[in-house]
Amino acid sequence: MTLLVAGWVAIDEIETPFAKVRDSLGGSATCAALAGALFTDVRLLAAIGDDFPTPERQKLEGRGIDLAGLETIPGGKTSRWGGRYHFDMNTRDTLYTELGVNAGWQPRLPPGWEGSSTAFLAAGDPVLQRNIMGALAAPRITMVDTIKFFIDGALDELRLTMRQAGFVSLNESEAREIARTPSIARAGRALLNGGPAGVIIKLGEYGAAFVSEDDYFVAPGYPLEEVVDPTGAGDAFAGGFLGYLDTLPEVTAAQVRRAVVYGSTVASFQVEGYGPARLLTLTRDEVEARYLEFRALTHFEVGK
Amino acid sequence: MTLLVAGWVAIDEIETPFAKVRDSLGGSATCAALAGALFTDVRLLAAIGDDFPTPERQKLEGRGIDLAGLETIPGGKTSRWGGRYHFDMNTRDTLYTELGVNAGWQPRLPPGWEGSSTAFLAAGDPVLQRNIMGALAAPRITMVDTIKFFIDGALDELRLTMRQAGFVSLNESEAREIARTPSIARAGRALLNGGPAGVIIKLGEYGAAFVSEDDYFVAPGYPLEEVVDPTGAGDAFAGGFLGYLDTLPEVTAAQVRRAVVYGSTVASFQVEGYGPARLLTLTRDEVEARYLEFRALTHFEVGK
Repeated sequence: MTLLVAGWVAIDEIETPFAKVRDSLGGSATCAALAGALFTDVRLLAAIGDDFPTPERQKLEGRGIDLAGLETIPGGKTSRWGGRYHFDMNTRDTLYTELGVNAGWQPRLPPGWEGSSTAFLAAGDPVLQRNIMGALAAPRITMVDTIKFFIDGALDELRLTMRQAGFVSLNESEAREIARTPSIARAGRALLNGGPAGVIIKLGEYGAAFVSEDDYFVAPGYPLEEVVDPTGAGDAFAGGFLGYLDTLPEVTAAQVRRAVVYGSTVASFQVEGYGPARLLTLTRDEVEARYLEFRALTHFEVGK
Repeated sequence: MTLLVAGWVAIDEIETPFAKVRDSLGGSATCAALAGALFTDVRLLAAIGDDFPTPERQKLEGRGIDLAGLETIPGGKTSRWGGRYHFDMNTRDTLYTELGVNAGWQPRLPPGWEGSSTAFLAAGDPVLQRNIMGALAAPRITMVDTIKFFIDGALDELRLTMRQAGFVSLNESEAREIARTPSIARAGRALLNGGPAGVIIKLGEYGAAFVSEDDYFVAPGYPLEEVVDPTGAGDAFAGGFLGYLDTLPEVTAAQVRRAVVYGSTVASFQVEGYGPARLLTLTRDEVEARYLEFRALTHFEVGK
């Protein structure tokens, strides 16, 4: 079983109320791939420029990620993103986005990758997301993520792409915007309409909600004493969620609930370092220990 | 067993993106008392003016609340509050606060009320909160709530009052402000320091977190399709939490977890109407049914 992750590999500049880092490994696909690699074999489909630092490439290789689909564009510049977080670490301003090689890039699947069992289409042009899903032979699980930029700029294409996905993941503000309602529950149900089997609404430090026709499940955020950098938490969630599901013989409602908790668990480690730094040393045993803590965090017996 | 609720009874003006209501029954003590009355006998300690409408008084009597401590100040004006909610229904602006009879009012316990087993000191002057706690003979459970006004204006007195309380409840932004940290987990632990046995951090639509030396529990918000008016949700939570605990022979960690879920359950009904309107018709059976739904919302088994 293999998880294909398509999206951006980038270089980030991150400012929090407590520190500032430059030239930090980033990008939606990077974080999701590193998270997924804790559970299953991961293939990374993305473009970089020839300015992409070799040590960063080696970090990805060091976690066993298949980089045959990481295309280096000669003379091209790796995408760059800069953001600044507010005091509550929940809200941020985007300072700049430089598309670089991702402007106009047309992803192509390396030979054999069409057989991937699971695919994560991280935030990106919804037409490209659809093309990649269409190029897969018979994926068992697909998930599409997006950002405000594409909701504002390509909503019709995005709706078409989301209808073809098995799962859709969104931030709560994005879900509210697409569904035009302040209610997360109502937004989740609206997004299910005519399309995906499940919708994940990411609630930042408050966790994540999973909505399907037959289920509604909420996992809280892990109560961290210190959040270093929230960047990429949603992508790490997606990697953990899909990585876990990819390993299973069957995807049941009970397994999806567990997958949401695994996603939340990996996301909680992601925010402990700048970008995906924490994921580079994270072990499956550490994930398992915190996963069990999540149960203790929310469990209650209804008896007297 | 009896729950004493002390705080404000008020008349509110509420504006949401969807509607505007005037002369709505409000006040922290009103909402907490109506919530508590679903579980146990409630005594209300508050001041009103002789402008307070008789039908509103009858609503409280109709739910069995003991109004011997509801003092009518001759010639006085009932407190008034106006607020406007933003589109997400999570944030609001206070338009005005008219203290009315609550300016300078000195609460006095009616005969016999010093024997109350449980007490909720809803947001108010921390010196008065402390005086009321001090006037009780041997309360088994006490809880102090506050608002930004007293954090900004009377922090030293508030700290002293919180140290004497069994439980403290706060909004997350207030917890962050007092503890001067963006981390809810760290703020919760800081508030425990040298004082209360447990801290409840209210997360609005995301639910509530309970923090003690030995426990950390999170209950999500109930996924409502429509929130009519969030005003008083935190007070309804307090009433449900304390009302349930008041009925128990023993307050264990497992019972506190259940009490948090009962609090969240009652709060989820509170926001279905303007002010505490929904609580006026709510039954214990309706509470019980939704309480069980909360378990389904968060439960997962850790097995394979």
